[in-house]
Amino acid sequence: MSEREFEVVVIGAGAAGEVAAGRLGQKGLSVAIVEERLLGGECSYYACMPSKALLRPVELTAEARRVRGVTVGEIDVPVALARRDEVIHELDDSSHIPWLEERNVTIVRARGRLAGERRVRVGDDVLVARRAVVIATGSHPFVPPVPGLADARPWTNQEATTAKKAPQRLFVLGGGVVGVEMAQAWAGLGSQVTLVHRGKRLIEREEPFASEQVAGALADSGVDLRLGASPTSVSRNGVVLVELDDGSAVEADEILAAVGRRPTTGDLGLEEVGLEPGTHVPVDESLRVPGFDWLYAVGDVNGRVLLTHMCKYQARLAADAIAGEQVRLRSDGLRSPRVIFTDPQVGAVGHTLAAAEQAGLRVRAVDVETGGNAGGSFIGKGAPGTARIVVDEERCVIVGATFTGAEIGESLHAATIAVIGEVPLGDLWHAVPAFPTRSELWLRLLEAYGL
Amino acid sequence: MSEREFEVVVIGAGAAGEVAAGRLGQKGLSVAIVEERLLGGECSYYACMPSKALLRPVELTAEARRVRGVTVGEIDVPVALARRDEVIHELDDSSHIPWLEERNVTIVRARGRLAGERRVRVGDDVLVARRAVVIATGSHPFVPPVPGLADARPWTNQEATTAKKAPQRLFVLGGGVVGVEMAQAWAGLGSQVTLVHRGKRLIEREEPFASEQVAGALADSGVDLRLGASPTSVSRNGVVLVELDDGSAVEADEILAAVGRRPTTGDLGLEEVGLEPGTHVPVDESLRVPGFDWLYAVGDVNGRVLLTHMCKYQARLAADAIAGEQVRLRSDGLRSPRVIFTDPQVGAVGHTLAAAEQAGLRVRAVDVETGGNAGGSFIGKGAPGTARIVVDEERCVIVGATFTGAEIGESLHAATIAVIGEVPLGDLWHAVPAFPTRSELWLRLLEAYGL
Repeated sequence: MSEREFEVVVIGAGAAGEVAAGRLGQKGLSVAIVEERLLGGECSYYACMPSKALLRPVELTAEARRVRGVTVGEIDVPVALARRDEVIHELDDSSHIPWLEERNVTIVRARGRLAGERRVRVGDDVLVARRAVVIATGSHPFVPPVPGLADARPWTNQEATTAKKAPQRLFVLGGGVVGVEMAQAWAGLGSQVTLVHRGKRLIEREEPFASEQVAGALADSGVDLRLGASPTSVSRNGVVLVELDDGSAVEADEILAAVGRRPTTGDLGLEEVGLEPGTHVPVDESLRVPGFDWLYAVGDVNGRVLLTHMCKYQARLAADAIAGEQVRLRSDGLRSPRVIFTDPQVGAVGHTLAAAEQAGLRVRAVDVETGGNAGGSFIGKGAPGTARIVVDEERCVIVGATFTGAEIGESLHAATIAVIGEVPLGDLWHAVPAFPTRSELWLRLLEAYGL
Repeated sequence: MSEREFEVVVIGAGAAGEVAAGRLGQKGLSVAIVEERLLGGECSYYACMPSKALLRPVELTAEARRVRGVTVGEIDVPVALARRDEVIHELDDSSHIPWLEERNVTIVRARGRLAGERRVRVGDDVLVARRAVVIATGSHPFVPPVPGLADARPWTNQEATTAKKAPQRLFVLGGGVVGVEMAQAWAGLGSQVTLVHRGKRLIEREEPFASEQVAGALADSGVDLRLGASPTSVSRNGVVLVELDDGSAVEADEILAAVGRRPTTGDLGLEEVGLEPGTHVPVDESLRVPGFDWLYAVGDVNGRVLLTHMCKYQARLAADAIAGEQVRLRSDGLRSPRVIFTDPQVGAVGHTLAAAEQAGLRVRAVDVETGGNAGGSFIGKGAPGTARIVVDEERCVIVGATFTGAEIGESLHAATIAVIGEVPLGDLWHAVPAFPTRSELWLRLLEAYGL
């Protein structure tokens, strides 16, 4: 057994771990990052990147059909899948190495386990962290205890994003973000998709109109949507047979379990420092684990918000905290900015109307059609879309915004700046959206509010 | 001769006039709007709307070619032109009538001329404005005094946006916004385009990188670009022959004069109230004409900024001023938000670096590639694009931003909010762009700045 010393040891090289390590390295600290699987983590290979690669040709083909004069045909599925493979670098992580090395980060390819204060065991060796250990081991998909499901070789996000061909019939269990994105992607690439969701509406943390519009779009793509239903048993005998609690049964070639994720902390040695394995690692607003001055946790593993950009944000703050700066999470949890890449896309930041009311704020929401302006003649013409702002009437600032519509995700950041910057409505009135862009939805929203 | 009284008379029903009249009507004031041509003005029929309609299939076809898996063919030009005709309502303005009528605006179809204080002559009648007259007569294209040009039946923006087919060879004189947009549109729709521009670079009020990238894109579209050149004579003998000051000559089927616009004030009766015909109507920051308590001018006619959204902004402020509110232009002139709809698009707000330095600000600019992030894998992949922010180092706020890139215009509004709202960099750092959208350019910019 040998011991090596670093100032910081980061366990896990997904998006959060990489950003934390890279930023610390750039600050001149000696950093080791420990990863037993792929550098880049779920996001790069099995989540955001491949799912967006699968969705983009579907989305763009739909948009091209809305623009008269553009000649567009059916999606070339093998080519689309080959592009997906390119986006995930054929599951080869070597492109991540130079980025880390340029920042003087030492890559340790091993499983990392806590082995007491400031100590991380990697195989037979121990890495000693003089300043801090950062846990960034992420999360893994949860396969719910439906009788027969685990034995039916269910897809998780990993298989759903990397499948080499479109299954003829795909059963999607769960109507959250993964469920709706994968349903749309594979329906667009030729699968007959059935989506079963226990709740009464899809993506139920978002505004009701977002749920409705995504449900409508999925139905238009041929997805067989079953809301308020749950599977009672699953079996695979060549094909998958799913029995539902409404008495019906569905046959499929693959079944995707998309009902949530669990923190990857079961075999991390948490018990060695008095924390509970298998649960989220709790952190305060500086990403520090309460009760420790040397332990941080960033990304999915702390359970605050499971979004790559928020994981990276946490990682930046944690790195700054470790470097001695005062930091505080100012965007967190359900109020974080978020985009769902269906068509219509859903982009949201801050409170939904219901959440704001529940939080006791005195708010008023106004809605306009996303495409209800000149720009809507050119982008997403005729496609569904709603733009809502939730205004705190006491402070005259926007505390939440939800935009739905074709390719609207790129337009979310304006709302994020307005919400986080607490830009007064009176200032927003002078921020003039360019004509004829669809961003004139801002003008329409403020007019609808009464400006 | 009869006299009719209104609280406000608006002369000109382009974008500015319509918005002023509509907003005043909504406030309950009695308003007449006087227009001898089309309700909706240049923008609706001969500028923004048809040019964007022509550019959109070109832009979207280019984007579709960048997304593997999408099957896209050549543009169907007649269909694209038919869509353009639909966008301009076949030059029928009847769709504008209900919008005005719902706001209790009286439409007077006639030429309006000032006839003394608070008086507007329309044919044999006079409209008396108890509170205010708003001049919103806009601008018209300037045909420069090149020998032979006027006799060669040159296109202006009107013909360039409404032509019933692509000319085989189009000569574009002028490399400003109209010149580059029309060159790109018609090149994309099949014309062989030559663009001659007196200056050393195109769109020269924008950042140099924007000029270079648009020039590169035009060249890639087959446009024959001639910078630093001017025509010395033009003749039309069946075809158009243009002789240039570099000794060369160019043959074309049509010639577009796109070298600027002049205020439409020549026959407006300005002399009746002591103002000079044929020049801009000067206004102060409340859009009031200095020396008059009843006369306002909004839109192109006041010469402050020739952009539809800024004309509408001025119109809103003028309406509020007439209704008795205190108003002040907070976005104006060259610093106004602006989008050029080429591919790459150019979106900018506030100062360019050079303009900020010239204004005496202590600034630092940082640049990143627009597509240099995960989102760039999906939108505008491989296409040129630069994002620049100009930071006022004393106040730690962004005073200018220029983004170039495929379809980047919709992303400008985030910068507009940041600039107008004077959102501190420290707040922008917590406004987290969603992954994997291209709006992560904000993260890269702030990192490059040193956050």
